Amino acid sequence: MTQITTTDVAIIGAGPAGMLLSHLLAAQGVESVVIEARSEAYVASRIRAGVLEHSTVDLLRSVGLADRLEAEGEEHRGIHLQWPGERHHIDFVDLTGRSVWVYGQTELQKDLIAARAAAGQRIHYEASDVTPHDPRTASPSVTFTDSDGRAHRVRARAVAGCDGSFGPSRAAIPAEVVNTWERVHPYSWLGVLADVAPSTDELIYAWHPDGFAMHSMRSATVSRLYLQVPNGTSVDEWSDDRIWEALADRLGHGQDGWTLTPGPITDKGVLPMRSHVRTPMRDGRLFLAGDAAHIVPPTGAKGLNLAVADVGLLAPALVDLVRRGDERLADAYSDTALRRVWRCTHFSWWMTTMLHTGEDPFDARLQLSQLRWVTTSEAGATGLAENYAGLPIGF
Amino acid sequence: MTQITTTDVAIIGAGPAGMLLSHLLAAQGVESVVIEARSEAYVASRIRAGVLEHSTVDLLRSVGLADRLEAEGEEHRGIHLQWPGERHHIDFVDLTGRSVWVYGQTELQKDLIAARAAAGQRIHYEASDVTPHDPRTASPSVTFTDSDGRAHRVRARAVAGCDGSFGPSRAAIPAEVVNTWERVHPYSWLGVLADVAPSTDELIYAWHPDGFAMHSMRSATVSRLYLQVPNGTSVDEWSDDRIWEALADRLGHGQDGWTLTPGPITDKGVLPMRSHVRTPMRDGRLFLAGDAAHIVPPTGAKGLNLAVADVGLLAPALVDLVRRGDERLADAYSDTALRRVWRCTHFSWWMTTMLHTGEDPFDARLQLSQLRWVTTSEAGATGLAENYAGLPIGF
Repeated sequence: MTQITTTDVAIIGAGPAGMLLSHLLAAQGVESVVIEARSEAYVASRIRAGVLEHSTVDLLRSVGLADRLEAEGEEHRGIHLQWPGERHHIDFVDLTGRSVWVYGQTELQKDLIAARAAAGQRIHYEASDVTPHDPRTASPSVTFTDSDGRAHRVRARAVAGCDGSFGPSRAAIPAEVVNTWERVHPYSWLGVLADVAPSTDELIYAWHPDGFAMHSMRSATVSRLYLQVPNGTSVDEWSDDRIWEALADRLGHGQDGWTLTPGPITDKGVLPMRSHVRTPMRDGRLFLAGDAAHIVPPTGAKGLNLAVADVGLLAPALVDLVRRGDERLADAYSDTALRRVWRCTHFSWWMTTMLHTGEDPFDARLQLSQLRWVTTSEAGATGLAENYAGLPIGF
Repeated sequence: MTQITTTDVAIIGAGPAGMLLSHLLAAQGVESVVIEARSEAYVASRIRAGVLEHSTVDLLRSVGLADRLEAEGEEHRGIHLQWPGERHHIDFVDLTGRSVWVYGQTELQKDLIAARAAAGQRIHYEASDVTPHDPRTASPSVTFTDSDGRAHRVRARAVAGCDGSFGPSRAAIPAEVVNTWERVHPYSWLGVLADVAPSTDELIYAWHPDGFAMHSMRSATVSRLYLQVPNGTSVDEWSDDRIWEALADRLGHGQDGWTLTPGPITDKGVLPMRSHVRTPMRDGRLFLAGDAAHIVPPTGAKGLNLAVADVGLLAPALVDLVRRGDERLADAYSDTALRRVWRCTHFSWWMTTMLHTGEDPFDARLQLSQLRWVTTSEAGATGLAENYAGLPIGF
């Protein structure tokens, strides 16, 4: 027998987008039920983004979600941008008055789980056969089977699809209204986590003839590092020694006295580099947010921030819709969100294509000229800074 | 019998680069002989660039070559950048304090010819078999046959190759020391001259799904217009009517009350769009300047300005070399010039790829997002403005 629940908003996905949305809605007295295919432990531990832009931190602060972030996260003024022989600091604070924060998505996820648990949020983990229904009516619903095998139907006034690029929400929008744009880059990232203090105060983005490299971090004791590798690369091809050697070469170990300190690698994975945008981000009462609607390559650190910006727009739209029957923000949601999505998609593409090396030597010369300009022209540096530190939500 | 002449600098090419170089050298008491394969009438009438950047005008002013330019040219504060439904003005003066001047290359060429004639400059037009010799010695020379069939040898302390991409100078640098970079774009420009007052106060750069279009001008009564066309297009495919119709569509005739006024087309041609850079720009006492060393697509209006910047650097280097035997500037010339060449090559590529449409709909979305950013972000607009209005010579 199907268990029926009634709520204001059925949220599919308990990642940062879904959990933050339930939090933002609750702050306005709008009730939600969250339905997640994975376990809580899986969701809490998956390694993803690590840089929060200015608007993201502002939004988290405004709803009481930034205490641990401010205590344990690290505020960064900017990034280092380099190529062999030259390292330049781009100071976002000087250029735009905005900073970014290094705080792992895993940490933010823990904060969201704790906040929602404290508020008594209903979350169904390990739900299977999750399916949205009737999005084009005023009474949509979501059906699923819970971890004990019981059938559920959540009736709602709206459904939020925060279930990523493989979830059921995006698949529920009829193909005939969907447009998709995609770009797959001809390279991937080999990413590692290492139990070693970062060898840098702020992120290093390094252009190198052997390929892009990046030194990021998760905390004062955990480093996150990346190497450009060909598509189809297996982690088995990259021993820890080979990884540290390549990182040392590409990041400029020994240059101007800078050294890279290696340490034990605790996680190793290959990330594809692609852009993907689906429009519209709404079909009737079904609204997509985050990876369900768009994927960016990680170079500009935009994925998580875009998801946060989406739900920052979606929450007030759903409050108006559910509480007052006012559909104006809901009607505007897709177009408003997509303006930022395309801005960030372009910026991520720009950072990616400026820093990754390919076959054509002409591209390498363009990249080096562009890097020189970005690091020496105030307009060039400000353009990077304002995009990286992030535009206001709903700009 | 070969007629022998001795001079300080043998200049191959009587286009703007060669003529300006002879003028700059003469101002410092350095003598030159100019050798040109074409006739004076051909050189004076060929239709090329039309926009002079700030530094170019400054340089011309400083050597008394800007009187007619300032009387008959038009100073522009910026450009219009548009896509269907939106036109934005980028004001270079507000953003960077620098303007550009619209003044046809044909007019500048006339001014140069007049100034050099007044100074008694020796110029050999219609020279054939022009060949530089012994550039790696202290006594290089150039041989040629004049229009009467007489053989000449010009002995000099240095040779300046200002003879374009098909001239003998670039071919004289041994292949084993040359590096070349090239990018051929998959589209061309159909360019027309029309005897009609421009329908715009400043240049219009228009993105359009059918392809890029541009409204430029040569004077208050002569318009210069361009359409993106596929490579391999013949002017025979484009009747005057078809040209004006496509221009009206792409430039937004009827939008917000703006109209395009057609007129008699007096010249029609197809221009390839390519980038080409050869390094080094020097081999011993042979120095390349302008198109002999680099070609840019015309989108950023950089070709003529780069040639002027090259000779602006080359003239003092040759003065030091010839007058004082001081080779420091000559040794630095290639690297110094190439910094600007790559900056302008990147900028020209950037303007070109932002504005020309292709097969991939993802590119079109990136372009529109970038255009929106460039026209609404001060940093974005300033980045375009400072590159377009031009960096200082020797920046």
